Amino acid sequence: MWRTTTAMPERGRIGIFNRSYYEEVLVVRAHPEILAKQKLPSKLVGKDIWKERFEDIRAFEKYQARNGTLILKFFLHVSKEEQAERFLERIDDPAKNWKFNLGDVTERKLWNDYMRYYEDTIRETSRAHAPWFVVPADKKWFTRLVVASALVEALESLELHYPRVDDATRDELQKSRVLLAAELPEKKRDGKKDNGKKG
Amino acid sequence: MWRTTTAMPERGRIGIFNRSYYEEVLVVRAHPEILAKQKLPSKLVGKDIWKERFEDIRAFEKYQARNGTLILKFFLHVSKEEQAERFLERIDDPAKNWKFNLGDVTERKLWNDYMRYYEDTIRETSRAHAPWFVVPADKKWFTRLVVASALVEALESLELHYPRVDDATRDELQKSRVLLAAELPEKKRDGKKDNGKKG
Repeated sequence: MWRTTTAMPERGRIGIFNRSYYEEVLVVRAHPEILAKQKLPSKLVGKDIWKERFEDIRAFEKYQARNGTLILKFFLHVSKEEQAERFLERIDDPAKNWKFNLGDVTERKLWNDYMRYYEDTIRETSRAHAPWFVVPADKKWFTRLVVASALVEALESLELHYPRVDDATRDELQKSRVLLAAELPEKKRDGKKDNGKKG
Repeated sequence: MWRTTTAMPERGRIGIFNRSYYEEVLVVRAHPEILAKQKLPSKLVGKDIWKERFEDIRAFEKYQARNGTLILKFFLHVSKEEQAERFLERIDDPAKNWKFNLGDVTERKLWNDYMRYYEDTIRETSRAHAPWFVVPADKKWFTRLVVASALVEALESLELHYPRVDDATRDELQKSRVLLAAELPEKKRDGKKDNGKKG
């Protein structure tokens, strides 16, 4: 998780990960040759390795949550039929050819394995402080609606607001107001109400 | 632990941390004003915060160990009397004045608190895969001996060796040997046994 940690958003910012350390329990699980290339000491690569990685991921997300990071995880679930249609479209439409990757078709043969690994991953790592949203994704408008709603709800739960000003400061503001207004012709003394924003 | 993670040694390297995330359960515990400055959401700063941080540290070190990092932690235990003598020396010896910090003396008043926090930390975070070595440190020669022994033992446990060559490659090496030797006058055909190293 080193790579993800170095890219985590600092306090007050939002970070978006397209894929993440979850690859370590998905594509790496479907392709033992990738795990082999990680050159882990062999005694550390036992039958429990996925269980251990889930535990490490849960611990990492709990730690993040305890330090004030709000975590939302989205699984965009495209059906097997929809995937075939999208791949065909990428082949047939010259403007979408660049999106097509021959590897996608061979990877598709592992569909059932992937479904099992997704299911396992979601079950093992969904927690109240780091929930998975499994979103039907055959219709993009629907996916976007669900994800946007979840984001809005999460942002609202933070009850963000501009820094609050105490009474003493507010009095000071009023005194400054009097001084500034005195410099202007009468008709301009109300200030610019719209701050340059479009009404 | 973000700061430490970004500085962790990559595979095949050794990293040395002088202080580390353990500060988060030691000096931060002795000085609530440092915790306050971390600007954590207030609902996340409860009475269990130290327990939670210990849990996060244990999880982090377990994750590191599972990924092949060997962890050794040393607590250099200087007695209160020895500390007073060292501080006096820093004041009396002009060559050591630069080491002296007025803050050290005020911090010394919290000695008993620190001892309690050290004890708690060592108990909560010592594990077979990430042991604490509590080293008497009034005598530097002794401290160094203990730390060096622990390092040597840990390195030996890794059973490191140069890449091994299989029989086929060894045969190839012998064939190359014959070709190379033929280019040299007879008395030089044994090669340089010492590879430039001092005997």
